[in-house]
Amino acid sequence: MEEIKGILEFMVEIEKLKSVSRQTKPVGLSRYENSAEHSWHVCLSALMLKDYANETIDITRVMKMLLIHDLGEIDAGDTIIYSSETNENKLKEQNCIARLFKSLPNTISDEYIQLWVEFEKGESSDAIFAKAIDRVPPLLHNIHGDGHSWKKHNISKDKVLTFNGERISKGSEKLWHELEVQLEEAVESGLLK
Amino acid sequence: MEEIKGILEFMVEIEKLKSVSRQTKPVGLSRYENSAEHSWHVCLSALMLKDYANETIDITRVMKMLLIHDLGEIDAGDTIIYSSETNENKLKEQNCIARLFKSLPNTISDEYIQLWVEFEKGESSDAIFAKAIDRVPPLLHNIHGDGHSWKKHNISKDKVLTFNGERISKGSEKLWHELEVQLEEAVESGLLK
Repeated sequence: MEEIKGILEFMVEIEKLKSVSRQTKPVGLSRYENSAEHSWHVCLSALMLKDYANETIDITRVMKMLLIHDLGEIDAGDTIIYSSETNENKLKEQNCIARLFKSLPNTISDEYIQLWVEFEKGESSDAIFAKAIDRVPPLLHNIHGDGHSWKKHNISKDKVLTFNGERISKGSEKLWHELEVQLEEAVESGLLK
Repeated sequence: MEEIKGILEFMVEIEKLKSVSRQTKPVGLSRYENSAEHSWHVCLSALMLKDYANETIDITRVMKMLLIHDLGEIDAGDTIIYSSETNENKLKEQNCIARLFKSLPNTISDEYIQLWVEFEKGESSDAIFAKAIDRVPPLLHNIHGDGHSWKKHNISKDKVLTFNGERISKGSEKLWHELEVQLEEAVESGLLK
């Protein structure tokens, strides 16, 4: 069965996401997070938070987006959210997505390449919600991990609030409201300045 | 917002799955896989393979099951699939699931505790497919990783074929057919005896 063989090849190739390192450490761990375990965490988080989206969303599409959203990093690596991403890097990710999905049946690859582009654009209600949830784990890692990446990269309170507030409140105002409270507590306890 | 606070607590608590070590190494890596990155891999794999299920399945339910199926390991640890699981261990996992979902709204916790039980029973078409896909990555890790865990645990060809053949073909005969071909190749090249 040629198609299943292609899907198994895909399953082997995407194993590489397990060695792409991110910029924050999971709560309680001294090592950095990888993009595969992040993709699980953010996908399950979106599922738990789906009822708090500002707009009507299709959670299955959101989950699909979040499962594949970082696959482009297999060729391009991870970029910290507070730095602006270059066009060159974005192109690398796009080419990587095309390369990975090439081994899959056309109906599948067409759907997922489109979903990846939709996520990147961040305009549809599904993409807006997915991109909002994607921003939450690094905040929790810092709040429960002595502000390690805020301190390392010298990220100010204003930058954290502006940069995440806009993105997260666009997807879920209720979620941002609660995170704002927790970030204020982080400021009070000196983790964030 | 008390409910969102509970969900954020859950998001922090399940971070612990990132430090639960499994029995095989991801393709190309020298370290063992953790259960969080495995959960991502198996969920995305199920999505790609959904059209090859023997029976009609609801892929959203399958994805939900696979995202949470290993959460019980946070308190119980991972068990190699070739050893029989004790009742004591199963009870630990069940209690862990109850503990984790306690911080979530009742509507959510009821749904996911039921899904976890359904997966464990493995009787519904969704659970049968999910449990079939869950068996595939360790095979790929061995096929593309010099049979490392087969050799370490002294697992014979017969055991690999019987143990996985039954489970995987029950979920997808077409998938098992292709895996059988690849396992025969592993036998020919001496990875599996």
